Amino acid sequence: MTVSPTPTPAATVEQVPESELLKAFLPLAKTSSPYVEVGPGDDCAVVAVPQGRVVITTDTQVIDQDFRARWPNGYETTGADTAHKCAAQNLADIAAMGAVPTSMVVSLTLPGNTPVRWVQDFAAGLTEAFERLGATECALVGGDLGRGRELSVTATVLGVMERGEPVLRSGAGAGGTLVHAGVLGHAAAGLCSLEAPPGTGWDHYPEVERRELERAQLRPRAPIGAGPRAARAGSSAMIDISDGLLRDAGRVARASGVVIDLDPAALGKHVAPLVEAGRAAGADPWRWVLTGGEDHGLLAVVPTDVQVPPGMRAIGSCAPADRRQAFPGDSAVTIAGQDPGQWLGYDVGEGWDHFEP
Amino acid sequence: MTVSPTPTPAATVEQVPESELLKAFLPLAKTSSPYVEVGPGDDCAVVAVPQGRVVITTDTQVIDQDFRARWPNGYETTGADTAHKCAAQNLADIAAMGAVPTSMVVSLTLPGNTPVRWVQDFAAGLTEAFERLGATECALVGGDLGRGRELSVTATVLGVMERGEPVLRSGAGAGGTLVHAGVLGHAAAGLCSLEAPPGTGWDHYPEVERRELERAQLRPRAPIGAGPRAARAGSSAMIDISDGLLRDAGRVARASGVVIDLDPAALGKHVAPLVEAGRAAGADPWRWVLTGGEDHGLLAVVPTDVQVPPGMRAIGSCAPADRRQAFPGDSAVTIAGQDPGQWLGYDVGEGWDHFEP
Repeated sequence: MTVSPTPTPAATVEQVPESELLKAFLPLAKTSSPYVEVGPGDDCAVVAVPQGRVVITTDTQVIDQDFRARWPNGYETTGADTAHKCAAQNLADIAAMGAVPTSMVVSLTLPGNTPVRWVQDFAAGLTEAFERLGATECALVGGDLGRGRELSVTATVLGVMERGEPVLRSGAGAGGTLVHAGVLGHAAAGLCSLEAPPGTGWDHYPEVERRELERAQLRPRAPIGAGPRAARAGSSAMIDISDGLLRDAGRVARASGVVIDLDPAALGKHVAPLVEAGRAAGADPWRWVLTGGEDHGLLAVVPTDVQVPPGMRAIGSCAPADRRQAFPGDSAVTIAGQDPGQWLGYDVGEGWDHFEP
Repeated sequence: MTVSPTPTPAATVEQVPESELLKAFLPLAKTSSPYVEVGPGDDCAVVAVPQGRVVITTDTQVIDQDFRARWPNGYETTGADTAHKCAAQNLADIAAMGAVPTSMVVSLTLPGNTPVRWVQDFAAGLTEAFERLGATECALVGGDLGRGRELSVTATVLGVMERGEPVLRSGAGAGGTLVHAGVLGHAAAGLCSLEAPPGTGWDHYPEVERRELERAQLRPRAPIGAGPRAARAGSSAMIDISDGLLRDAGRVARASGVVIDLDPAALGKHVAPLVEAGRAAGADPWRWVLTGGEDHGLLAVVPTDVQVPPGMRAIGSCAPADRRQAFPGDSAVTIAGQDPGQWLGYDVGEGWDHFEP
């Protein structure tokens, strides 16, 4: 095999050796930051952790499971979309601890016919995502490029606390205020649109707004900076909303031993901008807001005496998990004191489970 | 769907929700160590890094690319085999920096028909591997369980330096002694045996020894403890041999700007125990020793005045990369001063490239 020293983007990954693919990839990736002592290229990267503890998370996306190469509405997912999503979902986990992301390693499993261009788009998209999501001190420090029949991407991200303790899910107390940063239900509405072939009500929904909802699914604007701010402001519990508000609020409630009561008026403000889209889709925007995942907003609880952190909005409160009221229908989350299904008028479930058939 | 609270191992992963699968998995995994401040279950794990810097590596195994579910010789890879390999290849990277492994996150992408038993074997196998490989302070702190058509496993491991600086590939100096811990060529011989259907010369090779070679491929005994020891003993460069001696020694030589000359007498001691297997397989055991990957031994360089670290053996030396001799045939590695192909009498290549067709 003759190998061109600089593979043309039209080439596929099976046409270039791993070393050449790396040379096409790495210059497009941001590989340095104040935290990076040794970047890609050795057995390990070396990352500074001045505060003596590191937070770590990992997430995988698999084609046709977590995203589609080509959606029913015709859109084709780019390498940059995949990179952005990879960044958003991992960075949001770091932010949800109140931490600042410092470094990422990423493993790409690629079918042989993947264009080198896709891999380059991924690298450039990662760099752009760090910037757009406000993870300005994060860099790609290593990874693994390998072959498989199915495209998949696994990233692991490290973060550090600027000061104070990591914010766990278990710190919510009765009387605390539930606060939120980011959007709710937009990624679910976007997913609905991406999944809609031509000929549905979506055809009559304004094109620009439709693309914006789809973008919320493809490139979620996770409010990364809100995490450390919420920690500094005194949040006692926090989580990233990846699997839907009800499910993730439920996780905080159960871990903390409280009931979380959602405020319908506050949620209504999230539902309002989705009403038209819901009409176009024939879907209830309340369902999107309550159970839609992948917005990667941040949900935190601040104690009674603490102000709502900057950039966040109050959407509920925490009550003691006493015997009379606690966990109706095994739900630790209520809306205006009622079980969510009862309040809505239909069973809404809790959200997303990766293994539910 | 009715979900049994404790899934029987006969169930497959598509028959149980993610939360139940986690409940079947986590109790079998070692999730605590002196370094773990917050283990699995929150948005991130929290890991202590008392020395102010962390080393990080990631590696992916994909079925039918990096291992086979069922080998031509009839052996079926277990979840514990996969876990052991996952641990060995990642821990060896940590050890090659001179660092001590503290924590791992792992992402499993599983076809729906994967038995729950496989996932449990994986968890138990990981725990056993940490113990057997001497990574006694390492724990599983988080991960991701997801679905895909193709089984794959990605792990990321963190490590810390007990003291001193991480040992890079680039620190070898002319006059230094090349030292090695672990085995060479055993995993390649084992791979050859696993790939041999009934009816080859392997049938006449002693069964017990054959299984031992296969075990070197399936469950490599990476000498994890030798890494920190080599660092303490004053090694100036180190690498994990994952892609073969010639290729990985070449990486050290190029990064350091030296030529590494291998000592045929020292290599002969690694070839000797493989001669019979080579005869059975109709293969040259020198090729296994020089180019066989996946043994995950450690290759280090100690300066002239430094003793060979405990548990390691000298197998060569470093010469200045001057113009007359350096990099013959683009190789930075020689055997008794000759190009490896010339010394062997046939072109031996350098070893493994994941993307070479």
